[in-house]
Amino acid sequence: MTQPHDPKHLFEFLLRMGDTTLILGHRISEWCGKAPILEEDIALANTALDLIGQTQMWLGLAAEVEGKGRSADDLAMLRDAWDFRCALLVEQPNGDFGQTMMRQFLFDHWHLVQLTALQSSTDDRIAAIAAKAAKEATYHAERSADLVIRLGDGTEESHARMQAALDLLYPYIGELFTPDAIDNTLAEHGIAPDPASLRPAYDATVNAILAEATLTRPDSTFAHKGGRTGARHSEHLGHILTQMQWLQRAYPGATW
Amino acid sequence: MTQPHDPKHLFEFLLRMGDTTLILGHRISEWCGKAPILEEDIALANTALDLIGQTQMWLGLAAEVEGKGRSADDLAMLRDAWDFRCALLVEQPNGDFGQTMMRQFLFDHWHLVQLTALQSSTDDRIAAIAAKAAKEATYHAERSADLVIRLGDGTEESHARMQAALDLLYPYIGELFTPDAIDNTLAEHGIAPDPASLRPAYDATVNAILAEATLTRPDSTFAHKGGRTGARHSEHLGHILTQMQWLQRAYPGATW
Repeated sequence: MTQPHDPKHLFEFLLRMGDTTLILGHRISEWCGKAPILEEDIALANTALDLIGQTQMWLGLAAEVEGKGRSADDLAMLRDAWDFRCALLVEQPNGDFGQTMMRQFLFDHWHLVQLTALQSSTDDRIAAIAAKAAKEATYHAERSADLVIRLGDGTEESHARMQAALDLLYPYIGELFTPDAIDNTLAEHGIAPDPASLRPAYDATVNAILAEATLTRPDSTFAHKGGRTGARHSEHLGHILTQMQWLQRAYPGATW
Repeated sequence: MTQPHDPKHLFEFLLRMGDTTLILGHRISEWCGKAPILEEDIALANTALDLIGQTQMWLGLAAEVEGKGRSADDLAMLRDAWDFRCALLVEQPNGDFGQTMMRQFLFDHWHLVQLTALQSSTDDRIAAIAAKAAKEATYHAERSADLVIRLGDGTEESHARMQAALDLLYPYIGELFTPDAIDNTLAEHGIAPDPASLRPAYDATVNAILAEATLTRPDSTFAHKGGRTGARHSEHLGHILTQMQWLQRAYPGATW
């Protein structure tokens, strides 16, 4: 018989969703004013805004579930690295524009299958957030796939850069599909899908797009882990938080 | 007749000294573990430590003079960019190793003439700090001059980089020798030298070393200003403070 789930597990899951969109949103916003062409600059800034908007929803619900009086802003701005639950993929540096788009592509297609599954969550609040976010993720996934194809199947230079980006980032995908005890419990209750169950659909889509982009998916099955569970983040996360949290750290409770 | 000077002027002067050594010390410490050879890595780290030690003395005296219960640490870690009084030269990015050494060279020789003059200050506390710091500055100035000569009069590549560094940093020297009302008042009381009075000795030494390094001093007399007075810092200062002050901002009053 299914045991009632621990509210702490739900809280952890919501952090995993919200921290992942928060950190990727912050990373992408680093491009603002610096992207190679104006159209891409605006598109990246808009993607960042979508992700920050989703963060507001996930961390807002996390704060509500936690019930300790913390707000979404408190969770974003006043936790230290070891309390973050973002996937390692989104902590990775932007690199060149191609690397940023490859990271986005690998993320977007996981995001889409995840949000699609979450729309059937037994928790109505999660289903509602997922329905709203999935519309944005669909557009993000189309856009990043287009760019991966154009750059992968582009010039010799752009192809080489995209292949290097894929080789670099590929070991960060595995974590997204690796369940732990929290995932298992939530899957049992129909709250969130078993991460591993999403992999076949992800692989089918991503493989087809990479083939069209003339890019070679690495053979290795090695996967960096520890971001979603909080066991081990990359060195980059601390640097991101140092910048991201500066204002609330220097001027606690600042409002405008 | 000489008017008694305002203690706020002395406070400002001490911030100018302490903030300049603090920010340069922090900048140089960015090289720790990354310098091109081990010997230089250690030398730069030691220079950084000397400068932070001097900061402790200058800001310690500043805190005492201010008399508001703030400590040297409070001044270093809890002020925002607009309250800093460092020279713009020391905020400039490290660039390559040559650029770092050129910045150091241009700073060290100003530092040396400044500290030499301050040893005759009518304020005994300032004279004592200057006497201690001058010993370290003498060594720093010898070392950076040696490296500027070796790299300037080195390979075609190293010469080109040192000339580029000189051209880049030269416009930041002028500020060090430009007096304002505070400088004038302190000079009148024999507390600190008129900055302009230090320029001939500086020029003589620096010109001789640059000649030996086969480097060409730029003709321009344009000088960036605003760091020492606090009127306008470079964009870099905020980024430096964000990293430097992270711990005390995130964990106020932390001790170990």
